[in-house]
Amino acid sequence: MQVRIESLEFEAILGILDFERVTPQKVIIDLTMEYDYKENFLDYAVVSSFVKSYVIEQKFLLIEELLSALSQELKKKFPLIQELSICVAKPSIMPDCRVSVAEYYSF
Amino acid sequence: MQVRIESLEFEAILGILDFERVTPQKVIIDLTMEYDYKENFLDYAVVSSFVKSYVIEQKFLLIEELLSALSQELKKKFPLIQELSICVAKPSIMPDCRVSVAEYYSF
Amino acid sequence: MQVRIESLEFEAILGILDFERVTPQKVIIDLTMEYDYKENFLDYAVVSSFVKSYVIEQKFLLIEELLSALSQELKKKFPLIQELSICVAKPSIMPDCRVSVAEYYSF
Amino acid sequence: MQVRIESLEFEAILGILDFERVTPQKVIIDLTMEYDYKENFLDYAVVSSFVKSYVIEQKFLLIEELLSALSQELKKKFPLIQELSICVAKPSIMPDCRVSVAEYYSF
Repeated sequence: MQVRIESLEFEAILGILDFERVTPQKVIIDLTMEYDYKENFLDYAVVSSFVKSYVIEQKFLLIEELLSALSQELKKKFPLIQELSICVAKPSIMPDCRVSVAEYYSF
Repeated sequence: MQVRIESLEFEAILGILDFERVTPQKVIIDLTMEYDYKENFLDYAVVSSFVKSYVIEQKFLLIEELLSALSQELKKKFPLIQELSICVAKPSIMPDCRVSVAEYYSF
Repeated sequence: MQVRIESLEFEAILGILDFERVTPQKVIIDLTMEYDYKENFLDYAVVSSFVKSYVIEQKFLLIEELLSALSQELKKKFPLIQELSICVAKPSIMPDCRVSVAEYYSF
Repeated sequence: MQVRIESLEFEAILGILDFERVTPQKVIIDLTMEYDYKENFLDYAVVSSFVKSYVIEQKFLLIEELLSALSQELKKKFPLIQELSICVAKPSIMPDCRVSVAEYYSF
C-alpha cells in the first residue's frame, strides 16, 4: 500500500540566505510511503504532524539536509515504511519559478 | 487500452474516528484499468457507478481495507480488467495536507 | 526528443449513446510523440490540426476505436514518430468524474 | 538528490515563424536535475537565472535546438549534474492546445 501525504503546507525557517534564517517561509512537502498493510496501518495523521513539527524545530540550512535527516527520522519512528519519496518545495523563494528538492529512499 | 476514471467524487462513511463513523465525508477516487480491447469494451459508466455505490454501502474503516475489497470486487464484476490502480483520497480529513492511499493490482 | 501536445480541446461526435451520435461533445486529447531530431523536425501545428480534423470527421463510436485508428493515421502521415501515447477524455459525459482512455504505441 | 525548477516563466524569441522572430513569446521551462549531494550543493537560484538569460540571449529557432544546446551548457557550467530532464513549452503559440518539447539526458 502506498500512503500519500500531499501539499503539507506550513511555515518554517529553511535556507542559507540571511533573511531565510530570520523569517519563516512557506514550505510544501509531498510524501509517498510504501508499506505492507497487515495488522498495523500507517497513521497519516501522526506522520504528517511529526513531519511538520520536526521541520519547524530543526531550522535546516539546505533542503538536501532536511531530506536526509527527515528520511532517517521517519524510518526510525515508523518502521513499517519500506520505501519513501519526499519532495520539499520552497514556493515563494524564487519570483519566476517553483523550486523543490526530492529524494527516494528504499529501506 | 487503459481506461481512466479520475476524480470520482462523492460522500461516504470512511474512517475510524468517532465522527467519521457518523458523518459521511468527501471521498475522491482515481481508477486506472488496463484491458485488452477486442470485441468487448469496458464500460466506464457501469464501473464508476458500481464503485460509488459499493464504497457508500460498505462504510469501510480504513482506506487500506477499501482498496483490498474494491479491487477484488472489480475483478469479479469486470473480468476484462488485467491491471488496476486505485487511489482513494479523503481530501477534507486533514486541515494542512491532502491524504490518500493507493495500490496497484495485477491479475 | 518528445513532442507533447496537451489539452487539445474541441467538439466532436464521439460515443454510442443516442444523444452522443447527434450532439457533438467536448473532447480533450493529450499526445506524446517520441522522435529522433536530426534534419527534420515534427511540426506540432500540423499534427494537432490533423488530429482535430480527423477525429471530428470520423465520428467514432468508442474512444478505443479512435485510439487504434488515430495511431495508425499518425504513423502513416508522420513517419518520424517512433513512440506515441494518446489519451482521449470526454470530460462532460459523467457528472461526478472525468473519464478517458489511453494507449501507448511503439513503432 | 533531485533538484526541480518548475514553471520557470519568461519571454523570449523562440520559433521559426516570421512573427516569432520579432516578438518575444511566453516560454515555460521545467528542469529536473539529479546530482549527488556531498559537500557541494546545486544552487537553484544560479541555475534558473542562467537558464533564463541563456534562452533569451540565444533566440533559438526550434525548441529541439534549445534543448540540445541548453543541456550541454548546463553540464558544462554545473558539472555536478548527472541526469537532466528539460521540458520547454510555448503556451501561447497554439489557440486550442499546449505544446512543449522534452528530452532526458544522462551524463
